[in-house]
Amino acid sequence: MRPALDPALYLVTDTELSRPRAVADIVRAAVAGGVTAVQVRDKTASRRELYALTLAVREALAATPGVALFVNDAVDVALLAGADGVHIGQDDLPPAEVRALLGPDRLLGLSAGSAAEMAATLALPAGTVDVVGIGPVWSTPTKPDAGTGLGPEGVAALSGQARAAGLRTVAIGGIDAARAASVSGVDGICVVSAICAAPDPEAAARELRSALATAVTP
Amino acid sequence: MRPALDPALYLVTDTELSRPRAVADIVRAAVAGGVTAVQVRDKTASRRELYALTLAVREALAATPGVALFVNDAVDVALLAGADGVHIGQDDLPPAEVRALLGPDRLLGLSAGSAAEMAATLALPAGTVDVVGIGPVWSTPTKPDAGTGLGPEGVAALSGQARAAGLRTVAIGGIDAARAASVSGVDGICVVSAICAAPDPEAAARELRSALATAVTP
Repeated sequence: MRPALDPALYLVTDTELSRPRAVADIVRAAVAGGVTAVQVRDKTASRRELYALTLAVREALAATPGVALFVNDAVDVALLAGADGVHIGQDDLPPAEVRALLGPDRLLGLSAGSAAEMAATLALPAGTVDVVGIGPVWSTPTKPDAGTGLGPEGVAALSGQARAAGLRTVAIGGIDAARAASVSGVDGICVVSAICAAPDPEAAARELRSALATAVTP
Repeated sequence: MRPALDPALYLVTDTELSRPRAVADIVRAAVAGGVTAVQVRDKTASRRELYALTLAVREALAATPGVALFVNDAVDVALLAGADGVHIGQDDLPPAEVRALLGPDRLLGLSAGSAAEMAATLALPAGTVDVVGIGPVWSTPTKPDAGTGLGPEGVAALSGQARAAGLRTVAIGGIDAARAASVSGVDGICVVSAICAAPDPEAAARELRSALATAVTP
């Protein structure tokens, strides 16, 4: 059975943007402010560093069991660290293979940034993917390789296809509290810098939460 | 049960040095020339690329079942690609954790480049590690972060400790056919550029094999 997942306000961590604060401290504050899911992402960390980082974030989430913990890309790290799931992009291991390694009791998130990628996602066997990260909504400096933005309408259109197939969706890319209200038709929003670079991550999360009533359409 | 391992002439692949030839073609030629074990290493590849590369190398080894296939660092890729084992460095996932993920039926190699790293290796539970990569023997441009060389005597001393504990050893770092004869006290030698950058990888492997009578002490 899959762990519970509430993707409403989904934080993707960024070690650089968090400095000089520890990622785990940002996560703790963000969850206090209303973050409902966390993905540990650090493309420059060695696997050992990513493992240590994931364990630290897991510890930070110990008091809030409903908050799902994902690891970006590294299936081995996710398994070892006892994370709830893995999030993969289009350049990572293929989704069906990752699901085979994960087994049925973990969550799998997949990025889709175009109609073709969404079609490929929807063609996967049922139960492979749980949540689709759709974006970028707007182009973003934290992921310069992610292409130009789909815009809120583009995200809503792709999200509609995924939701019709029973998948959950989150919008990602350039979302902050001001822009969150213009996102709609998704189960949640992902943020990176809007929380990791905020002087007060708890307050930033709270502000994003209050913008969610508009963004997240049940 | 562990797969068979003959570490006598152990090739570590390098995608850049192999160009414009495919790594799998280098491997095929190298095995024809006498390579006995292969490690797929590509620190710049995405996990999906590393997976494809490993599958291609595995295919190249299909006709020679005694040649063990290792994947550098990526435990998930090794498991998915059906490799015989994983090789990890000191910055990768901790050996005991990797062994837990691999189970008892795969090989685990670990790099050790100092007395302290060898002591840590020997302190691991029995059955964690199968083979220790000791080096660099000489400093090498293919691994600029590996420090200055231990020299053949330094390698032989560390190898003696590992072999006394029942582990197998390979020397790595700057070894070519000319230098191979000055390496001793190990179960095998690892090469990268001596084969991957050679105009004729099969001939290069053959030349290294003939130097092994001196290098490899049973």
